[in-house]
Amino acid sequence: MTARTGVQTADFADVKAANLAVVLRHVRGNAPCSRADIAAATGLNKATVSNLVADLIDRRLLREDGPSGFRIGRPATMLALDGAPYATIGVEVGSDHLTALAVDLLGHRLLSWRRSFAEHVSSPGRAVAAIAALARRAAIRAARQGRQVLGLTVGVPGLVDNDGVVHRSPHLGWSDVDLRGRLVSALRGPAYSVVVDNDANLAVLAEKRYGPYPEATNLAYLTGGAAISAGVVADGRLLRGNRGFSGAIGHLQVRPGGPPCVCGRDGCLEALAGIPALIRRVLPDADTDLTAADLAPDVQELIRRATAGDRPALDALAETGRWLGHGASTLTNLVNSEVVILGGYFAPLAPWLIPSLEVELAHRTAAPRAGGCRVAAATLGTDSTALGAAARVLDHIDSGQLPEHSP
Amino acid sequence: MTARTGVQTADFADVKAANLAVVLRHVRGNAPCSRADIAAATGLNKATVSNLVADLIDRRLLREDGPSGFRIGRPATMLALDGAPYATIGVEVGSDHLTALAVDLLGHRLLSWRRSFAEHVSSPGRAVAAIAALARRAAIRAARQGRQVLGLTVGVPGLVDNDGVVHRSPHLGWSDVDLRGRLVSALRGPAYSVVVDNDANLAVLAEKRYGPYPEATNLAYLTGGAAISAGVVADGRLLRGNRGFSGAIGHLQVRPGGPPCVCGRDGCLEALAGIPALIRRVLPDADTDLTAADLAPDVQELIRRATAGDRPALDALAETGRWLGHGASTLTNLVNSEVVILGGYFAPLAPWLIPSLEVELAHRTAAPRAGGCRVAAATLGTDSTALGAAARVLDHIDSGQLPEHSP
Repeated sequence: MTARTGVQTADFADVKAANLAVVLRHVRGNAPCSRADIAAATGLNKATVSNLVADLIDRRLLREDGPSGFRIGRPATMLALDGAPYATIGVEVGSDHLTALAVDLLGHRLLSWRRSFAEHVSSPGRAVAAIAALARRAAIRAARQGRQVLGLTVGVPGLVDNDGVVHRSPHLGWSDVDLRGRLVSALRGPAYSVVVDNDANLAVLAEKRYGPYPEATNLAYLTGGAAISAGVVADGRLLRGNRGFSGAIGHLQVRPGGPPCVCGRDGCLEALAGIPALIRRVLPDADTDLTAADLAPDVQELIRRATAGDRPALDALAETGRWLGHGASTLTNLVNSEVVILGGYFAPLAPWLIPSLEVELAHRTAAPRAGGCRVAAATLGTDSTALGAAARVLDHIDSGQLPEHSP
Repeated sequence: MTARTGVQTADFADVKAANLAVVLRHVRGNAPCSRADIAAATGLNKATVSNLVADLIDRRLLREDGPSGFRIGRPATMLALDGAPYATIGVEVGSDHLTALAVDLLGHRLLSWRRSFAEHVSSPGRAVAAIAALARRAAIRAARQGRQVLGLTVGVPGLVDNDGVVHRSPHLGWSDVDLRGRLVSALRGPAYSVVVDNDANLAVLAEKRYGPYPEATNLAYLTGGAAISAGVVADGRLLRGNRGFSGAIGHLQVRPGGPPCVCGRDGCLEALAGIPALIRRVLPDADTDLTAADLAPDVQELIRRATAGDRPALDALAETGRWLGHGASTLTNLVNSEVVILGGYFAPLAPWLIPSLEVELAHRTAAPRAGGCRVAAATLGTDSTALGAAARVLDHIDSGQLPEHSP
């Protein structure tokens, strides 16, 4: 059959890459497993699987894990992903902090650092220096462990185009910053890939990969901080749009004539349902410029009051939930999300947000029962953007873009 | 190489199907062309191309078109798509009409019928009988021409799930109608595929295939009738969402406390910017129940008045444009569309809608210059849903799901 149809090498290489990825993903989901297990589950023949596994071991993506003691007959050599040779680095740029995180091929965390960042805001130059310094430190740490760094991905709040240029980030005070280009320069053209993306996009990919929604192919993640934006996975793929500007849900007007927004408009979802608006409703003495402050202490105070049954706190949370339901209904109506995930500071507040959110969402969604959408708190803590950033390279590997291991 | 890596037949068949599709798409875009042209353009070797072409001629998808007289050296045999052997049928179910359309493999129209439908509204049983009768007549016509019918696709306004069940269609007065199942029964399990989809989804696919946007991968189409919904192509693919309920833009609230909507809510985009609302603003004596009426005569009158410079007509159109800009901004913000296409009756009204629409859209989009979005009138007249329906099967063929010709 192969000889007759004579498909050329280029196409054939695609088939091989696809099959390497099939084997890799199977082991990722089912390790430890044997070559025979892989053949049975994937439908590839055993000789093919042996060849593919040999290639993956050569590339140091798989390793042999010793024989299984629980098998009938001849013990099979078991396979697992090799966690040792590689690292990928993710950085989240928040309005008040930088988070760096590195993972191995298994997604295990190799390091997790958080540092204050407020002093760098509004100065892209100092921000680039700080991000590059953090990335360099992480890369050095990885190299000392004998790991090859495969990529650095940086998540930023705001409109980031497909080339990694930050067009607008009101919360960082940036516009038209070629963050990717400047990072590549600051890192002196590193051997690994450098990618810049919107923070919500990376967070939704983290929830898709590590969250409790293995079957869901339509997820949306709402960032919950001073900014609100949405990362959307539609029909299994991250939704980017024409220039990468999708998910700007925070600047949909939900109340005409409502409070002014950092974007210059009024009544935006972010102005009504963002964490600073919530804090101001409950804690009128809070810092007036909350957009760049560390919001964590005030959120803790909110949780304390809500837990104690404080009526003003509960009312403010219910109101915020209603606005979020209004905002989320644009997702259920337009992209028919299956899960809307409350991220950032919305996650610990979710028990008080979700009841009113769900009512509003169902009321405003054209399809019955909110189109089948459920609402859930993020499960990955405050690290989802950095984790999604670090895991971005794993997505590429899992789809067949395999690294060549440099010894 | 092939022998060493030993990929099995199943994967190999995928490569072959993909290559058949590559050749077919190349001929679709470049006919007449020779085997050598195909090899040069696709990178496939000449022997492979000859084999693939022979297969496609066997399946009666390609035909030889005689030698070219304009070549240097030995004249090459030119190839073209074969328009003769196949037909696909598309039906649009409007609130006041049925449109049936059949195309050949080249997309050439074989028939185009329109019939009044108002009397069938609210009775799914009679609607199924009418749609089936129309489809049967079209299939008989195709058979008499010696054509094999490959598929029937039916477009319906409203929420249609992935199984072809119409969950809600306020304008048809339907809920929970298993239209696909009932059509298959009425047609006695036909040999061709039967698919039911939302009208806007099919229309945007028609614009993507036949409209003047060959490079665009992010398009949205707004239906313009009594109902407003959006068909969205995101990153090159039709956006479906969890259950197929995406694009329900008509029921986003754009004016809290605004006029009542057919859906039971108030201030919906459809209630403010739908054609009946526009007609009522300009022609207060028009039929009060415009949702199921034939809107064409009143739209003609509107165009006449606008052309004559009638101030109330121009003001009403500008207001409708503003509401549409508000609605479209949810698309630019959430899915970052590159082109928003005004369909249905919005298309002939577009010259008077677009100026205010664009201003509102730019104002409400978080990204500068509406995120790169332009607004255009649909180019396919009122047939876009039926044409997109008929062409649906061509999409499957172009992606490698090839028919076996039954002689």
